[in-house]
Amino acid sequence: MARIRAHLETLTVPLPGRDALRPAEAIMTTDTVPKVAEAAVGAARVVGIAKGVGMIEPDMATLITLFLTDAAVGPEPLDAAFRRVIDRTFNALSIDTDTSTSDTAAIMASGAAGPVDPVGFEAALHAVALSLTRQVARDGEGATTLIEVTVDRARDDDQARRVAKAIVNSPLVKTAVHGADPNWGRVAMAVGKCSDDTDIDQRRVTIRFGAQEVYPEPVDEAGLAELADYMKGDEVRIHVSLGTGHAAFTVFGCDLTDQYVRINADYTT
Amino acid sequence: MARIRAHLETLTVPLPGRDALRPAEAIMTTDTVPKVAEAAVGAARVVGIAKGVGMIEPDMATLITLFLTDAAVGPEPLDAAFRRVIDRTFNALSIDTDTSTSDTAAIMASGAAGPVDPVGFEAALHAVALSLTRQVARDGEGATTLIEVTVDRARDDDQARRVAKAIVNSPLVKTAVHGADPNWGRVAMAVGKCSDDTDIDQRRVTIRFGAQEVYPEPVDEAGLAELADYMKGDEVRIHVSLGTGHAAFTVFGCDLTDQYVRINADYTT
Repeated sequence: MARIRAHLETLTVPLPGRDALRPAEAIMTTDTVPKVAEAAVGAARVVGIAKGVGMIEPDMATLITLFLTDAAVGPEPLDAAFRRVIDRTFNALSIDTDTSTSDTAAIMASGAAGPVDPVGFEAALHAVALSLTRQVARDGEGATTLIEVTVDRARDDDQARRVAKAIVNSPLVKTAVHGADPNWGRVAMAVGKCSDDTDIDQRRVTIRFGAQEVYPEPVDEAGLAELADYMKGDEVRIHVSLGTGHAAFTVFGCDLTDQYVRINADYTT
Repeated sequence: MARIRAHLETLTVPLPGRDALRPAEAIMTTDTVPKVAEAAVGAARVVGIAKGVGMIEPDMATLITLFLTDAAVGPEPLDAAFRRVIDRTFNALSIDTDTSTSDTAAIMASGAAGPVDPVGFEAALHAVALSLTRQVARDGEGATTLIEVTVDRARDDDQARRVAKAIVNSPLVKTAVHGADPNWGRVAMAVGKCSDDTDIDQRRVTIRFGAQEVYPEPVDEAGLAELADYMKGDEVRIHVSLGTGHAAFTVFGCDLTDQYVRINADYTT
């Protein structure tokens, strides 16, 4: 994993002999930046490109993402690994809860680099997809802040995903992040929207912004000052532990801004 | 029914001997107008007041609404009629998909006016609740336009409600209305979000803005000019027929504006 992570630091370095940046630019529509990521596994590499800024929710909305690898992986294991990875990355992405009919995720393997360790390959694929997902969230229509919501200690993946989605999709949470306000009450409200899951008990819930617990432990003066700085960053992590089990899920989104409204109110077809 | 409707034209007229406007003003928080409605049934009257502007979705969010009547109606029929009415009015209201823990709808009957026709009473109660619901939607945080979405020819009430909610809650539909854009593509997209209801077939769907069909029949030049005027009004009705059955449901909401973002990004606790 060390090598994969190190590689991700150089996101825009193209594959040897290929210019991944050019196709990434070619598929841009209202994207403000091209989205490219790569990782290595053994002698092979995985490179991915993506486009998309709005109309993005669970069903892989107006989004195109394409992955290439020279690893030799058969069609069936490739398809299975790809579906597992996309489920935890692009399908965990939400810009505005709206979905499109024209989303595509595709992967092609040339086999030129020969066989690779399957676990390492899936890790590399996941690293590339995760990087692209975060790049898309950060470039969401009008967005200024990437929001990453992790829900853990959940009963199962579905519960974790559902609560995380309720938080990342809440207009009140999204505007609070835009206003750099560590408003844990709005996060608690979004958890409460899932309270027909009757095993969720607020007395077992904890909420953190970044590393700072904000509920149930109140924040002291020093913590508040740190938190104010943290909330002004271009990335906010919200972490909720439910205390109903051992499953975890992370979702990706962005803040809701005046600019999002202007882009979509002024646009006409 | 004629008398009830006529009565609703004079929404702010207080009950004889009672000033409904004063309590309606007393419960206002960030509401920009007090919300009062009344209707008559036989010798009796029904009067209602409400407050609430944000954090409003299916579960009757930060909303207080109170109904008074001098009709003599027993506790059980009163409760049953009230629940049926609230289900189709306040629980069909969505400002921003976010919910609160502190919403209340209450009704009190003094009996002073004696017994009334139960059907007429429920119609009067419905007329008052509907008027208040529309007043709340119109005064939604930052809102400039009331959006009313009716879905009919649906398989059942649940399907009609689900599709109507998907439309009224879509940020892309809400911003299109804010931009006065009759963007039926976004309405079709929101219907498509419900496509795991596999009996919904786009070839049977029709979409209207106001009285103007926009899909599948395309709008001609004259229609487009009329539509442009219609979309600039302070109330937009979106009407979708699914062609899967005979049920119908109407929901109430508002446009999404820069002002909504500012109110909720600048507010801190």
